[in-house]
Amino acid sequence: MFNKVLIVGLGLIGGSILQGIIDNHLVGELYAVDFNKLVIKNSINDKLIQDGDDDLLMLANTGKLKDCECIIIAVPAFAIKNILAKIKTAIDNKLLPDDVIISDTASTKGNILKDAFDVFGVLPSNLVLAHPIAGAEKSGFMARDGNLFKAHKLIICPHEFNHQITVDKIATLWQALGAKVDFVSCDKHDEILALTSHLPHLLSYVLTYQLAKDDENLNIFRYTAGGFRDFSRIAASDPIMWHDIFLANKQAVLKGLDNYQTILNQLKSAIEDDNSDDLLKTFEIAKNAREHFGRLLVEKEKLKNL
Amino acid sequence: MFNKVLIVGLGLIGGSILQGIIDNHLVGELYAVDFNKLVIKNSINDKLIQDGDDDLLMLANTGKLKDCECIIIAVPAFAIKNILAKIKTAIDNKLLPDDVIISDTASTKGNILKDAFDVFGVLPSNLVLAHPIAGAEKSGFMARDGNLFKAHKLIICPHEFNHQITVDKIATLWQALGAKVDFVSCDKHDEILALTSHLPHLLSYVLTYQLAKDDENLNIFRYTAGGFRDFSRIAASDPIMWHDIFLANKQAVLKGLDNYQTILNQLKSAIEDDNSDDLLKTFEIAKNAREHFGRLLVEKEKLKNL
Repeated sequence: MFNKVLIVGLGLIGGSILQGIIDNHLVGELYAVDFNKLVIKNSINDKLIQDGDDDLLMLANTGKLKDCECIIIAVPAFAIKNILAKIKTAIDNKLLPDDVIISDTASTKGNILKDAFDVFGVLPSNLVLAHPIAGAEKSGFMARDGNLFKAHKLIICPHEFNHQITVDKIATLWQALGAKVDFVSCDKHDEILALTSHLPHLLSYVLTYQLAKDDENLNIFRYTAGGFRDFSRIAASDPIMWHDIFLANKQAVLKGLDNYQTILNQLKSAIEDDNSDDLLKTFEIAKNAREHFGRLLVEKEKLKNL
Repeated sequence: MFNKVLIVGLGLIGGSILQGIIDNHLVGELYAVDFNKLVIKNSINDKLIQDGDDDLLMLANTGKLKDCECIIIAVPAFAIKNILAKIKTAIDNKLLPDDVIISDTASTKGNILKDAFDVFGVLPSNLVLAHPIAGAEKSGFMARDGNLFKAHKLIICPHEFNHQITVDKIATLWQALGAKVDFVSCDKHDEILALTSHLPHLLSYVLTYQLAKDDENLNIFRYTAGGFRDFSRIAASDPIMWHDIFLANKQAVLKGLDNYQTILNQLKSAIEDDNSDDLLKTFEIAKNAREHFGRLLVEKEKLKNL
């Protein structure tokens, strides 16, 4: 598929991409960059990668990336701009080919386009934005799983200067990892993620904060049951990561939140006014949609176990 | 503990109380009322109960409840007033003793006090309100579990006319079923439940409705992952039951919702204004509280497995 690939960031996602590529024999030589030198050292020792470093330019300076065909950036969104700048420096110094395909895994896209434009002065035709809709309770390289993406959605967000052949190469790589590839515009992607991921995190954070604040001794949590347990699970997510996501996807999050508040206020009025019809109609539509979603989940599990 | 107990409503909760009483040999004779005649018939055949009927007054007319010491009402909140009226009729006709202890399992309390006052003209000193904080994915008599309440909270809401000895008897019964009994006023109970149970259901219904409404083909659900799955699970709950709960606990739900909206608007402003401090501080407090709650859950599981 590719002769030489560089993966930047060996966390859960980057590590799982690496493992999936190895398990499926998709690439000739693999290189990696991660701030954790031990992860790099162990990956070299275990013959998972040919070489690696905690700094992209140091690795490029060895000359080993001169014929690298593809770079996959799997670091938090806020760290991507710095990586892009180093890639540009390496290209400018002929340490990376100027047609190297650059892809990512970030959960927000509009901000990455902006970062790329800031760094390159144009939107590079070889920059293909991608986002695997997968995650796990665990994190870190040790939790990597070559099957993590199997039967999960992978959204590619082509931009106006992308060549189809470049987009197709990234799509083929992800399909080989088992992902189901869809193509969605950057704007639509950010809107979808605001609703399906960012908004639930915000709403869960707020209620958990409200309970914690209401009761200094946290006694109120002793009276919670399964519903709250599930609802609040994502409120234990990493504050720094989610702070970054809300600011990176600000416009789409605020738009989704506006709509949410409108519906919430309608239901509030329905409760105030004993408007049974409105309450029942809304709950019925939600219940049917959630059951539809539950069936999708069952199908996905079946696909994973094929 | 008691010589004769009547359970009204053999769903998951009533059935699990029945099974727990039998498993722990707590009561001499058990009687039951349920609208499902088959459940009653099978329970008699299986020697779980001495006798039963689909109508409380029909059962009382047999004379078998003349020395009944305790009635536990385990039906949906909206159906309790009708049961209380039948109990009053049976007492008035000397078919139930006038000092029979009456208890319930409803998840809202202020409305039950009002129902009791409407029916009896006073708050009966032998009416002890109780609420087991337990539930399960399943429902119905067949899903009953004598261990359902083990290590779970049971809130008793004493009112001003209760005698301590009556309250103690109900507390002892629940402790014998494995529950951890706490005493909380009706108002405080309704406030706690509004925050820990009713509000999460409302918030989850609203987001799921928003997604369903936004996308007629429900395509957007294909892009959701684990966070949304957990957050939205309770949106598949029974619309009629939750409609009843929101109206039954209207004041406390609206008060909790007001506070929620205030905090949500503060976070919205923080996102708009790039106020990193406010975002991080709120998320940190929520994360710490959720992790504290997670530890409580682990302890509870350990207790269940003792």
